[in-house]
Parts: sequence; structure tokens; C-alpha cells
Amino acid sequence: MQPQPQKLVNKEDFHTFVDQFDTFLLDCDGVLWHGSELIDGVPETLDYLRKQGKRIIFVTNNSTKSRRAYTKKFEKMGISASPEEIFGSAFATAVYLSKVEKLEDGKRVFVIGQDGIKEEFADVGIPVAAVEDENKPMTDEDWAKITPDDKIGAVVIGFDTHINYRKYAQAHTYITRVPGCRFIATNTDSTFPAAGALFPGTGALVSVLQSSTGRDPTIIGKPHSTMMNCIFEKYQLDPQRTCMVGDRLNTDIQFGINGGTSTLLVLTGVTNEAHLHEQLPEVTPTYYTQSFGGIGLAAQQ
Amino acid sequence: MQPQPQKLVNKEDFHTFVDQFDTFLLDCDGVLWHGSELIDGVPETLDYLRKQGKRIIFVTNNSTKSRRAYTKKFEKMGISASPEEIFGSAFATAVYLSKVEKLEDGKRVFVIGQDGIKEEFADVGIPVAAVEDENKPMTDEDWAKITPDDKIGAVVIGFDTHINYRKYAQAHTYITRVPGCRFIATNTDSTFPAAGALFPGTGALVSVLQSSTGRDPTIIGKPHSTMMNCIFEKYQLDPQRTCMVGDRLNTDIQFGINGGTSTLLVLTGVTNEAHLHEQLPEVTPTYYTQSFGGIGLAAQQ
Repeated sequence: MQPQPQKLVNKEDFHTFVDQFDTFLLDCDGVLWHGSELIDGVPETLDYLRKQGKRIIFVTNNSTKSRRAYTKKFEKMGISASPEEIFGSAFATAVYLSKVEKLEDGKRVFVIGQDGIKEEFADVGIPVAAVEDENKPMTDEDWAKITPDDKIGAVVIGFDTHINYRKYAQAHTYITRVPGCRFIATNTDSTFPAAGALFPGTGALVSVLQSSTGRDPTIIGKPHSTMMNCIFEKYQLDPQRTCMVGDRLNTDIQFGINGGTSTLLVLTGVTNEAHLHEQLPEVTPTYYTQSFGGIGLAAQQ
Repeated sequence: MQPQPQKLVNKEDFHTFVDQFDTFLLDCDGVLWHGSELIDGVPETLDYLRKQGKRIIFVTNNSTKSRRAYTKKFEKMGISASPEEIFGSAFATAVYLSKVEKLEDGKRVFVIGQDGIKEEFADVGIPVAAVEDENKPMTDEDWAKITPDDKIGAVVIGFDTHINYRKYAQAHTYITRVPGCRFIATNTDSTFPAAGALFPGTGALVSVLQSSTGRDPTIIGKPHSTMMNCIFEKYQLDPQRTCMVGDRLNTDIQFGINGGTSTLLVLTGVTNEAHLHEQLPEVTPTYYTQSFGGIGLAAQQ
């Protein structure tokens, strides 16, 4: 008999569930909000958990914002969150390169990405290679100027709406022609949600370098355990007393499973109950429930 | 017993070989030249074949130049070639959309690529969607402006050193949200040679859209038979009397095999005799010889 996920329905279920954990890792879009709409009961659930002394960590694959910049998004949504409670893939990459698999002394990182990565790297003192004329389109004279630089210890690629050929050509040159140069992707989500639609995501942008170099990057974000190891490293968590909450089986729930935590699937995002049962037993959450907001609303009854 | 490639060594071998064919399809880099260096004996071989009344067609996956622009490259190398003798992937895509699998009336093509594609499309009257601010980096206000356009009948992507996120976001939107929109790649070479090094090629750039849309493009260039069908369509060739000459087993030789022509592998490019024998019987050329230039030099003896 395969293990079956346990459905949480009423106040008693939620109570028993919450009691087992010290820490909740929360995915954001589809759990807390949809785009710019807050999901019903979420502030009440966060209040309830905090009053019970639980630690909350918001975990997102979005690398465009630093933790500090992210607090503004939370504020706008009416949710209180400190930078210490936010764990984005940009910050995770900074933790990874400063604590888990350290960048070699004297080396710099060539970054394809937005401010989030650069701010988080600056905060922990990871040196970033300056890029001249970053947004200027490539010219024929540029080919010969793109040459290996032995000071580059890693290429890091995250989401970047200013991606261009020059950046790809430089990254390709470092990965293929600088001995020991590492290749790291903040995450590999193939699409990026914006303005109510989907657009090419970090994973799609990364595939250019996978194809041209023939190398696969170290992937930091969910569902890869690199990000979980960074979370464990920073907060010194006990996986047995930790629950990952999310709306996606193949990223959020798989992330918890890979990291050895318990998992709670919520049905307010991309997965409904029929999808869940279709995916069993391939990805089996420990628990599932209609909405993360339901926990706080039930507690008020 | 697997068929073995026949090695052409002397004047008699070359003579018997040449006699069997009316048309020679020639790859360029690695057969005629290396970067900017002409391979010994090539002009003599071309003269010899033309004097024998053979038809020469130069076949290249490079989509950055139109046939007219390509003749300048040939001139610079000291090889005479008319636009009619050149078959690039940009022109092949124009033939494909105007003759083989026609673009629907009233529809336009969204092009990611350089002048070669736009010039060839203009020549055969394929309408190309105008792109506003093509090279302006994406801003946050742009997300909501990138919407489906029912007039787009196909997205065509070739090599483009001015690739940017806005172009990718538009192409993704048309492919996923415009009913019937086709997705076509001029070629899928993963690297592009320039200034004596390799950089990300068309195939690498295309992989962004494959990853984000989950769709595979129709591929025009070598080794795909789309390009061969376009060549047959244009020149009305008999495959039995046609030989494809190239230096790469998995593109050039496979291209000839897919198209039902005979094939000649030359060892002046990326493949040496040891590589050839390692790849047997997976890709078996009909013939192989040291150099394409050897044919003309032997004829002078």
C-alpha cells in the first residue's frame, strides 16, 4: 500500500497538524496570494502561527528582488514580513557561494540577473565582475573582445529582462574557457508570471547556456535541495519539525520531500484535488488542505 | 555486413566519382575555407566541376546573410559564386513559407533574426511584422503591452546578436496564445563560430522558446529534410544524381542521407579519419576523401 496524503478539514485537524512543527516554509504565489490578490484568511493564519511561537520562512524562486525589496511586496499585500523571514533564490545563491560551496578567494562572479542578485551578493561580500555597456547591443567588433578572464570563478544566471547576446557570449566564454569556472542557476522555472500571463522564465533563459556549453548548471531554487541546504545552514532547522507549504507538486512539494521535511499541499493555486490524485504516488504530500487561509479562519471559530 | 564508405584517393577515383553526379551540394566552412583561410585547391575543383557542366549549390545553415550578401563573402575568399548558387537557411525559410508550407493569406511573420531573413522574406513577398523599439530593453510597463496578435501566422527564429527579452516575450505570446501560430527555426546549431572561438548558436537561442512554450519548432536547416525539400523544390534535382559534400557527420552527411542523395565526407574540417570510423555505422557517408580541393588538383596533373 502506497502512503496516502492526509486531508486536513477542520479545526482539530489543523491543531494536530500545527502542533507537530516549529517551522513553516511557505511558497508565496498560489499560497498567500494570486498575482495582486490576497487569499482569504492568510493574515489570520500567519498571526495564529506566530502567536503559537512558530517560525515562518517565505521561500520563493523569484531572483529579481533582494529580501529587503521583497518586504515592500509583502507590505503592499498587507502581510507583515521581515527580511529575515524571506528566503529568495537570489539570497540562497549568496548563502551558497559564501557558506556552502564557497567562491574561491580572489575570484569574482559574472552575473546575468537583476538587482536582487547583485544586492544580496553585495550584502555578503561576494565580488561581482563589472560589466561594461551591459545593455548595449552586440556589434561585429565585439566578437574579438569577448575573451576568457581567469578572475571569473562562477557564472550565476537568474531572471533578467535585460538579457542580451553579449551577456550570453561572455557567460559561454567563461564557462567553456576559464578552467574551474562554475555554472550556477538561481532556479529553473520555465515560465515567469506577469500581468496575468506567462512569459519565458529563468529556466528558459538558462537553456541557452546549457545548449551552447553542453554543461548543466548547479540549480539553487526549488525543488533542488541546494536551496533547502542553504535554509538549513542559515536557520539551523530540524527537518522533522519543519513543514513545506505550497501549491505545486513538482516544485514545492518535491522540494520538501527532497529536503526531508513534511509537506502540505494547498489547493488555492495550480493543483486541484483531481490533479493531486492523478500524480499519486509519484509526488505524495504528507498533508493537503483547501487553503492555507483556512487554518487561521478555523482557529477564530 | 554494414556498408563501408569508399575512400577516394587518386585521379581515377575522383573521375569516376564526379561522373555519377549532375549536382554537388557544398557545405562551406571546413570544405571551402576555415574561417578566413581558403582551403588549398578549392578554386581549381570548382573550375573543374563547372567545366564538366556540373551544377554547384553552396548550402549553409548561417541565416544572418541573404544570398546577395553572401556573394561578397565568396568574393572576398576569391571564389566566384552567384546568388542563384547559394542556399542559406534564411533563403530556405523563405522558400518554405512561400512554396512548401505556405503562410496563410493575410498573415505576417514575427521574425527574431538579422538582415538575412528579412531580406529574403522581402524578396519573395512574405510580410514581416514591424517591431517597435526592437532593441530597447524591456521595462516593467511593457509586460501588459505584450499581447496576442491574430495577424501573426508564424514565429521565425534565426541567429540574432540583438536578441533580447522583449523579442522572446513576444514570440512566446504568439506561439502560446495565437491559434494556429507556427514556430519555425532556421537551424539548430548549438554554437556559432566567430573570431576563432565558439559562441552560443541559433539552436541555443531557440531553446528558450522550446523550454517556455513546451513546443518544438519546425527546423529548416541541415540535417533536417525541410531544407533539402526546399532545394529539390527550387532546382528540381534528381537525388540519385546529387552528392552532398561536407565535413560534419551529424549535420552535412546526415543531411544528404535524410534527403536520399549520395554523400562525400572531407577531412579538412571537424572530422578526421579516426572519428569517421568511430561513428560507423551510425552515420555512413557514401565516400570520403582528404580534401575537396584534392579533386581539382588531381585533375591538373
